[in-house]
Amino acid sequence: MTSIAMIEAARDRLAGRVQRTPLLSSPFLDEIAGRRVFIKPECLQHTGSFKFRGAWSAISGLPPEVRAKGVIAFSSGNHAQGIALAAKLHGIPSVIVMPSDAPRIKIENTRAYGAEVVLYDRATEDRDAIGARLSEERGLTLVRPFDEPLVIAGQGTAGLEIAEQAREMGIQEADVLVPTGGGGFASGIALALEAKAPGLRVRSCEPVGFDDVARSLASGSIERNSSLSGSLCDAIVTPQPGNLTFPILSRLCGAGIAVTDDEALKAMMLAFNRLKIVVEPGGAVALAAALFHGQTLGDTVITVVSGGNVDPEIFKMAMERYG
Amino acid sequence: MTSIAMIEAARDRLAGRVQRTPLLSSPFLDEIAGRRVFIKPECLQHTGSFKFRGAWSAISGLPPEVRAKGVIAFSSGNHAQGIALAAKLHGIPSVIVMPSDAPRIKIENTRAYGAEVVLYDRATEDRDAIGARLSEERGLTLVRPFDEPLVIAGQGTAGLEIAEQAREMGIQEADVLVPTGGGGFASGIALALEAKAPGLRVRSCEPVGFDDVARSLASGSIERNSSLSGSLCDAIVTPQPGNLTFPILSRLCGAGIAVTDDEALKAMMLAFNRLKIVVEPGGAVALAAALFHGQTLGDTVITVVSGGNVDPEIFKMAMERYG
Repeated sequence: MTSIAMIEAARDRLAGRVQRTPLLSSPFLDEIAGRRVFIKPECLQHTGSFKFRGAWSAISGLPPEVRAKGVIAFSSGNHAQGIALAAKLHGIPSVIVMPSDAPRIKIENTRAYGAEVVLYDRATEDRDAIGARLSEERGLTLVRPFDEPLVIAGQGTAGLEIAEQAREMGIQEADVLVPTGGGGFASGIALALEAKAPGLRVRSCEPVGFDDVARSLASGSIERNSSLSGSLCDAIVTPQPGNLTFPILSRLCGAGIAVTDDEALKAMMLAFNRLKIVVEPGGAVALAAALFHGQTLGDTVITVVSGGNVDPEIFKMAMERYG
Repeated sequence: MTSIAMIEAARDRLAGRVQRTPLLSSPFLDEIAGRRVFIKPECLQHTGSFKFRGAWSAISGLPPEVRAKGVIAFSSGNHAQGIALAAKLHGIPSVIVMPSDAPRIKIENTRAYGAEVVLYDRATEDRDAIGARLSEERGLTLVRPFDEPLVIAGQGTAGLEIAEQAREMGIQEADVLVPTGGGGFASGIALALEAKAPGLRVRSCEPVGFDDVARSLASGSIERNSSLSGSLCDAIVTPQPGNLTFPILSRLCGAGIAVTDDEALKAMMLAFNRLKIVVEPGGAVALAAALFHGQTLGDTVITVVSGGNVDPEIFKMAMERYG
């Protein structure tokens, strides 16, 4: 179980290694939202997403003799890049297992960050078997993307920063909107805020049609998504909330909010024009919720932008439609 | 004359009002440049450029009874937006005098930040006469864009941040590359670094063909640009260095660097892909210099991105060419 002590220990291990991202704002966004909106831009984090925090926390938290053998992860996205760079900076090997049909740019980026990429055929090969074999042969430690206490602790360091920044700005109460896939980021932030800024409450944000977390929070038990494809916000689509993350979310978060792909694209363009940051669709769902779904929100909202690793073609499409 | 004491006083007046922008980096950019490159993204500053610093400094530095009557500025760009928002947040009126053929989006943005926009016909009307009449009638104080000690002091607060951030990262020596128009930003930063980080040296960066500062530094006296139109980097094209700024630049800066429009567009796209920030062409010239003109640079470079207020059509063009 991740505790506030683990999050603070992660913060100490991450000191000088992660970006302390600022809190941005724009009067134009305040006006659209009808309330004060602050933005925590984790797209500016190393590797372009908050995942670097959890990756660094997990790798730096391993016993040195275990760490030295290297790590392995399954991911075609932001977790892969976070693990690859964190491993490289620790001077240890990393293996990322990816489907062979993953976008080439993601494969290239992950390699460029220093990882060995092992491709598998989704139709004929078993990812877990490949991972298990490599782990055993080479003594690699598996780092799960969200259901892993040290990863949750690392993501929670963003929550410590939010608590500090809110205090500096005199913010006592706020909704903290977090793009949510498996729930590692939202649960880490929620634990940090529970301890350091109890007037700030996390709200999970997801794409419409892939709102497993919102439905799980509403029903009180883990619900699954019926499909995993068809959202532009694919980076935050996961089958269901994690076994470790869901109890934390359930205890600490308000009701989840779901936004459409079009709302996410509009939020991306407002972030481009008004905040001068590059946001991926999944990373924009919390900003979209603040701008277009304010009915249940209070006077002050802190929205987290979780990542900026957007395909240029998708960005062009957003510019054509809403730029 | 702007002194380090004035810059520190400006910092105190700006505390809690400006963004303390982070220092970003990417291993991909380090590799292209062949050296360590850190980026100070002033595109994330309020109103999308560093100009808000100087505007706040100038307005907050006026005697209260003078300030209350309001301020006036001539600008169609980033200075206008900085003045408009800083005036609004001080609760005082601002008048921005703009050519009637300025881009509509800039006029609208300046109005949205709370300014009264007075348009004039470049062909038939005299801007200075209009400004003088309005100043006299209403008691407005003119805030010049760069040749103004309080403005230079405000821009210098970015230099204080760079000095602090370099110290935190253990950087003792570096070239600090600054996009340069009239020289207010570069001279403010240079004064701050002289006092707080003497191993860091400013280098001015300009568009090829509009390198009045570089030529002035080389010749030792103020040189003019032969033309003022035809650069994509128009935000930083001015007739000549300022009478106040040039002596500071001349005393403290290394040789100037000039980059092509294409290099600026490439730097914009690398900033988009690798740093997840939105940069205007003129704001990208220092990054372009770091990436493509490293011949005279040392092991460590800090490049300032001065602004992000790019026309979406220009951004699309950059994506088509280099995205």
